[in-house]
Amino acid sequence: MFIIDSVQDIQDMARGAVLLGTGGGGDPYVGELFVREQIRGGRFPKILSCDEIDDDAFVLSIAGIGAPSVLVEHLVSEKTLHRILARAEAFYGRRVDALISAEIGGANSMFPLALGAISGIPVLDADGVGRAVPHIEMTTFSIYGCKATPAILMDDSGNVVTIEATDDRMAEDLCRVITGAMGASSFGALYPMTGKQVKAVAVQRTITQTLEIGRTIRQAREGSQDIFQSLIDYLNSWSGRMARILFDGKIVDVTHETRDGWHFGRVTMTGLRDSSDECVVEIQNEFLVCRLNGRTITIVPDLISILDRESGEPLTAEMLSYGQRVKVVGYSADPMLVRPESLEVLGPAKFGIDEPFRPLADL
Amino acid sequence: MFIIDSVQDIQDMARGAVLLGTGGGGDPYVGELFVREQIRGGRFPKILSCDEIDDDAFVLSIAGIGAPSVLVEHLVSEKTLHRILARAEAFYGRRVDALISAEIGGANSMFPLALGAISGIPVLDADGVGRAVPHIEMTTFSIYGCKATPAILMDDSGNVVTIEATDDRMAEDLCRVITGAMGASSFGALYPMTGKQVKAVAVQRTITQTLEIGRTIRQAREGSQDIFQSLIDYLNSWSGRMARILFDGKIVDVTHETRDGWHFGRVTMTGLRDSSDECVVEIQNEFLVCRLNGRTITIVPDLISILDRESGEPLTAEMLSYGQRVKVVGYSADPMLVRPESLEVLGPAKFGIDEPFRPLADL
Repeated sequence: MFIIDSVQDIQDMARGAVLLGTGGGGDPYVGELFVREQIRGGRFPKILSCDEIDDDAFVLSIAGIGAPSVLVEHLVSEKTLHRILARAEAFYGRRVDALISAEIGGANSMFPLALGAISGIPVLDADGVGRAVPHIEMTTFSIYGCKATPAILMDDSGNVVTIEATDDRMAEDLCRVITGAMGASSFGALYPMTGKQVKAVAVQRTITQTLEIGRTIRQAREGSQDIFQSLIDYLNSWSGRMARILFDGKIVDVTHETRDGWHFGRVTMTGLRDSSDECVVEIQNEFLVCRLNGRTITIVPDLISILDRESGEPLTAEMLSYGQRVKVVGYSADPMLVRPESLEVLGPAKFGIDEPFRPLADL
Repeated sequence: MFIIDSVQDIQDMARGAVLLGTGGGGDPYVGELFVREQIRGGRFPKILSCDEIDDDAFVLSIAGIGAPSVLVEHLVSEKTLHRILARAEAFYGRRVDALISAEIGGANSMFPLALGAISGIPVLDADGVGRAVPHIEMTTFSIYGCKATPAILMDDSGNVVTIEATDDRMAEDLCRVITGAMGASSFGALYPMTGKQVKAVAVQRTITQTLEIGRTIRQAREGSQDIFQSLIDYLNSWSGRMARILFDGKIVDVTHETRDGWHFGRVTMTGLRDSSDECVVEIQNEFLVCRLNGRTITIVPDLISILDRESGEPLTAEMLSYGQRVKVVGYSADPMLVRPESLEVLGPAKFGIDEPFRPLADL
């Protein structure tokens, strides 16, 4: 168990969450602001590791749902957070023993911490994917046997919808259209799970990872060390995973398009010295695939992150613009995501990419 | 109180419901088939007038929701009807004392009778509009102070969604998108009301009206009387309302378009003898406005019905086709619909028609 009692820790965690967001998941900034205020007021989020909770504990995810570009602008209201907790406890018929993030990448890293701070309910050091994904059914919670519903969605105006879906693909469809009717952003309580289930289906220690990623970047920057070397060393220290710098260059073209509630786009970069090298990253909410001179060098569900090449600040897809000097980092996904049953749900084919998954280490 | 124990009565009621559907509301045929089967099996729907129920009775609407063209093809399942009743009673926390149709025009005339037949719960001789309307917030239930939600929607696959909306316009938006995700058709339990509320907000005796309209047409047809004269005489016998034949001719053009979940279209007719007379009816799910040689002769919320000129069978918008010989009947709406507070919600402006409502009698 640890307590987050420093504003700097939250800033570090938000930075790490953007990196794990792999371009998507929404900027955690508004959630970060909210949690910072709580910490200043002495309301510290409490983080538990999964082995610290009872098997029969009641664990619930709290998430902001909506297009990344809208989530960024949606201020978190203490009233809405209290309301969703009260409604969830009434709906499920029991007190929530621990909160968990459905996806640690992006904005949904912060909402459980925000509710944890104001309610005193501990937050588990784990999540449902270890990165960001665009669909509910792509979480390890769903893939390994838990269900997103019964779930509750609400908006700030007081509209409340509960959902019982036959499967999580349908839960995704319902959440998406309901969120649309609610003005493109909603808050949800979903994935009611027991402590025992969480231990089996969650990606572990991912809050710690966001904190340490953010801290590594900040400390290297402050100490004038090589930010990217420090970051790669840190990411490589995780057992079973590897990171590498995929490209170093500048953005020469970036396209954004919102279609069917998705953010599509493409970033094209060329080398700083040798402009004949071309690196292209395809976007579908998240960065999906990175190709160097036409050859795939990282592909979903492995992570692709684009960072400012001077400050080492991770960037979301919306932050990218012409002329930026960036480095692209590839990071192998948590081993749970690359098992066959996971790849069936979140492998390249699910994003319309006609190419098999190959791990970063082999590319 | 009366019992519907004859298959002919149900056929008559379905015919009357199509006329009151004013082109929309969905063909009641599949619901009619279901109720006929129940009657053959000795399960007779029981109809109560509103003054026969207690003020504190719990009254609920059961409705099929979706595009008319899809509702027509959606077979009613006894299992789904039982499920929605069981889920509704659990959700609202009490037994349902009486069912009521949200709109008597079209398919939703039959679903309360279907559930009434299999459950024994009486159905009120009333509804929420006395015709068909395309939106939830356009019912007299909504206009005169009741709320459609809390409501439950479900599909045949087992997906269940409950809705608490801040207002019925939002309830409409949510029902529409959720029904879309459910495959364009769903069943709903909505408008939880007390007996006292129903007496104040419902359009009265509309089941009786469907039965008598259908019976009038059938008996005139069987007796080789003037079907349309009999029908007009019957409709005029309702206090405060008037009917007239607007046009007698043949369809020379009909357009259909489905856009944003709406059925848009236009029917053009010319006179049988004098083809210089042109009658145009605009469709937006229902028949909205009827113009003779460019001059408005009936406009929403007054009813426009198009009937086969030989058999007197009322036709839905989907049934219309080139070459059909038809008569167009105008019928003034229930007085509750033409009060200012109603016209604000379902007057011509709400359908994008830049023309004030004028009653049929003045046109």
